[in-house]
Amino acid sequence: MKIDILSSQGGVSGLSGAPRRQTVRDLRLPGLPVHAPPPGNDSWGKARMMSNITNYLQYLKINAMTANDRIEEEIMSENDLIIFLERLAQAVAPAPILVGDEIPESSLHDWSAEVGGRPLALVAPPDTERVASVLRLCHEVGVPVVPQGGRSGLAGGAVASEGAVLLSLAAMNRIEEIDTASGLMVVEAGCVLQTLQEAAVAHGRSFQLDLGARGSAQIGGNIATNAGGNRVIRYGMARDLVLGLEVVLADGTVLSMLNRMPKNNAALDLKHLFIGSEGTLGVVTRAVLRLHPGVGGANAALVALAGFDQAAGLLAHAQKSLSGRVTAFELMWADYYRAVLAETGRRPPLAQGHPLYALIEMQGANPDHDRDDFQSMLESAFEEGLVIDAALAMSGREVEDFWSLRDGVAEILSRWATTINFDVSVPLARIGDCVGTIRAALAARFPDLQFIFFGHAGDSNIHLVAGPIEQVDPTGHGIEAIVYDIIRDFGGSVSAEHGIGLHKKPWLSYSRTAEELDLLRRMKAMLDPKGILNPGKVI
Amino acid sequence: MKIDILSSQGGVSGLSGAPRRQTVRDLRLPGLPVHAPPPGNDSWGKARMMSNITNYLQYLKINAMTANDRIEEEIMSENDLIIFLERLAQAVAPAPILVGDEIPESSLHDWSAEVGGRPLALVAPPDTERVASVLRLCHEVGVPVVPQGGRSGLAGGAVASEGAVLLSLAAMNRIEEIDTASGLMVVEAGCVLQTLQEAAVAHGRSFQLDLGARGSAQIGGNIATNAGGNRVIRYGMARDLVLGLEVVLADGTVLSMLNRMPKNNAALDLKHLFIGSEGTLGVVTRAVLRLHPGVGGANAALVALAGFDQAAGLLAHAQKSLSGRVTAFELMWADYYRAVLAETGRRPPLAQGHPLYALIEMQGANPDHDRDDFQSMLESAFEEGLVIDAALAMSGREVEDFWSLRDGVAEILSRWATTINFDVSVPLARIGDCVGTIRAALAARFPDLQFIFFGHAGDSNIHLVAGPIEQVDPTGHGIEAIVYDIIRDFGGSVSAEHGIGLHKKPWLSYSRTAEELDLLRRMKAMLDPKGILNPGKVI
Repeated sequence: MKIDILSSQGGVSGLSGAPRRQTVRDLRLPGLPVHAPPPGNDSWGKARMMSNITNYLQYLKINAMTANDRIEEEIMSENDLIIFLERLAQAVAPAPILVGDEIPESSLHDWSAEVGGRPLALVAPPDTERVASVLRLCHEVGVPVVPQGGRSGLAGGAVASEGAVLLSLAAMNRIEEIDTASGLMVVEAGCVLQTLQEAAVAHGRSFQLDLGARGSAQIGGNIATNAGGNRVIRYGMARDLVLGLEVVLADGTVLSMLNRMPKNNAALDLKHLFIGSEGTLGVVTRAVLRLHPGVGGANAALVALAGFDQAAGLLAHAQKSLSGRVTAFELMWADYYRAVLAETGRRPPLAQGHPLYALIEMQGANPDHDRDDFQSMLESAFEEGLVIDAALAMSGREVEDFWSLRDGVAEILSRWATTINFDVSVPLARIGDCVGTIRAALAARFPDLQFIFFGHAGDSNIHLVAGPIEQVDPTGHGIEAIVYDIIRDFGGSVSAEHGIGLHKKPWLSYSRTAEELDLLRRMKAMLDPKGILNPGKVI
Repeated sequence: MKIDILSSQGGVSGLSGAPRRQTVRDLRLPGLPVHAPPPGNDSWGKARMMSNITNYLQYLKINAMTANDRIEEEIMSENDLIIFLERLAQAVAPAPILVGDEIPESSLHDWSAEVGGRPLALVAPPDTERVASVLRLCHEVGVPVVPQGGRSGLAGGAVASEGAVLLSLAAMNRIEEIDTASGLMVVEAGCVLQTLQEAAVAHGRSFQLDLGARGSAQIGGNIATNAGGNRVIRYGMARDLVLGLEVVLADGTVLSMLNRMPKNNAALDLKHLFIGSEGTLGVVTRAVLRLHPGVGGANAALVALAGFDQAAGLLAHAQKSLSGRVTAFELMWADYYRAVLAETGRRPPLAQGHPLYALIEMQGANPDHDRDDFQSMLESAFEEGLVIDAALAMSGREVEDFWSLRDGVAEILSRWATTINFDVSVPLARIGDCVGTIRAALAARFPDLQFIFFGHAGDSNIHLVAGPIEQVDPTGHGIEAIVYDIIRDFGGSVSAEHGIGLHKKPWLSYSRTAEELDLLRRMKAMLDPKGILNPGKVI
């Protein structure tokens, strides 16, 4: 059964979007302190290493399963495995490698419920050179590699594969440079998103990628998955915040594309081959990120709307009258608004009973000064009949209160578990119809199922949570089939922002043509001819 | 000698950036009225066609040159050529084909001075299906194809190749749909940029790609070259305004990627393989373009600055205090300001003698309302010592007057002809040093050369015009070597926005690594294994 844990995409408040497995959040691999070799010793700890490999082989035998048998007997002999692991240890030395039960259980998953295979080893190289050495070796031998960032993905893109080397970027977590005059920072892939946000603020700038997993997600993973989040309407996806990239290809070639200019048309911009490739075409090791001006705060309002057409009208009105300063436009349908109030016990800023609610936010350097513009926008929206009722935040605290309604999805998820969660997009004008169609179809087929609709509607992105599913559709497949059929009919995408990974692989053809899938396969064959990079993911 | 004709990148006022060959601008191929066949007749005009081919062969003989001999004798026999042209005519029927001296001389060039070869034929298919038929045929036979839009490019990317079929997109010029609620329009590749801008305005929205060639450039060419222009600082390059694309591959496969959502992470976003590929990897036939809110007008100021550090400080200050509403930040160094006043006879809004001048613009829905914010920004810039002097535009007319100073480069180009023009970028913080270094190096080597520096500095883009070159460096190579060496040392790009084409091909390795060039070649071999698409361009 495939169930993802929806990121709450919380805005102003701290970490939200709690994953189902609390333990997954706790994992940190900063130093991988096991097996630290004596410095300068190339044949470090060989005895210890051998002992670990022996333990590992013992472990495989104890846990003998078909897949492991396959590894031991068909793919690699015991002796070859020992040689491979020794060479792997040399490739990352002086950083250690972990094998067998030394690999933390948490390293096997991401925040999805996808189940992968048993890996051969876990390494966390401290620099690009060693990432390249690991890939060169795995390419030579034909061993799969699963690149891992903060493993906060919701599509199973980072779960372990059978017989693979887990390549954690956690040890590459240096901010190399912050160039405020050029509006950029140069960072290693393992930097945690929130750390980068804070570093930008400390330099009087802002880094405008933001999502619920900010405290765990690493920028390399954000780039590899083209992460979306809260402020896409104004600042774009992760792609739009990347000026340059360094990527290691499957064969260990280091591709340096560390461009620092907003404008660079010296031939095709190759970084786009890797942004959103989910680790299947190369491993992101460093990035040049675009900084935006510093932000002083936000104005925000919660408004009640008669329906989706009014919401689309309000969005267009706000974007025009505020000249592109709208930073969020989050829709919550009545079912969501009712559920979040019921599950969290919060006091409703606006009465229940309206068809639709929107949270509008405008960040700016001086939110007190900007309030007049924001209030005028709302007043004229009233005059034009777009808005039924509105609550205007009069302080940063009230802005956070409004966001807590949106972030309350985390509480709904835990109360309703087990749920099935969707991350889809359709052309903005069709969102209202699409939600209505899905709601009617689900209600007809599963009358006892609860569901809520919400999302970053300004970006065409709808989220849907349905549950509990145990009694009505325990595999979730029936619900998926209904939702994705409708999304396909509306010309939408089965993944707006979370990516395909393992979870949505069966549905990819609903949003990509046969010709696109063919080209994706050819790209994969060109860049990774032995198919070692994140095998089985995406396509 | 390679000399490009710099786009003036004019802003508010009408068409500017006059190319050196006036006749090139006049070409239109809306109907290709020659040889219009009787409707419904598949074997239309065969006799006429044959007569033309015979004329063409005669023409080739009259103009017999080595290259033509090669085509006739080595690549294709006279009989094969006739068969090929007949099949080509069938592929585009009922649209005509032009051969020999029927092909307008203007179709051989773009706005650069690059010289190409003699094409076999010119076709302008009216739909994607016929574009695919043409490519399928040319791929089968191995005949080169040069895709052509408005041919306003400045790098030679659209000049004719020897023995090639010129594939004009001019007949695919329909706006298929404008969906204001979703904020998008669906257009064919041959639509002229200015037509799209006007259509967006007529629907209360804006299409925010803008450049000097707006009256000639076609959107397909803008996308194929990832065009930049005047408002990149706020709205990005052409890439950032494209939601979806339809592309025909070299073998005639139609790749439909007509996505309509700002968020779509259903696997790698393949459209980026073609944006900026300059027609070497596929032919853009249709696009889904992103619309922005309508704009009521602009506030603008011309300011005098003590140096580049103050300019960078002013830009950061303006972007922060105006919360991202800055739409242009154009720098003019003292040499440019002096030259434009001298060549145009305009009255200076600010006294000469300052080291640097900047034109700052902020578009908005209500420019009168926005003026207070703009003026406050300037006042605090004065207080912080960033600005020496400033002139604030008090009307739309005055905004245009300021832009006319920037657009005046067209007059400098014609007075100084023959000039050599550069379109480079370096990291924003290094622009001041880079300009100083280039100026000193050129002055030392060519004491009699005049040069002016200006550019879209907010995007890291510098333009340099040097001339007249006849007496000092008639090939331009000496000047190019000096400038591009320095650009390489500063980690910059040899092409910020114009692309590589033929013109900058010798310098591409200054801005791309050997690994990038290798990957570009592999991409090319994968997507166009027979090398028929725009051969000899870019790499």
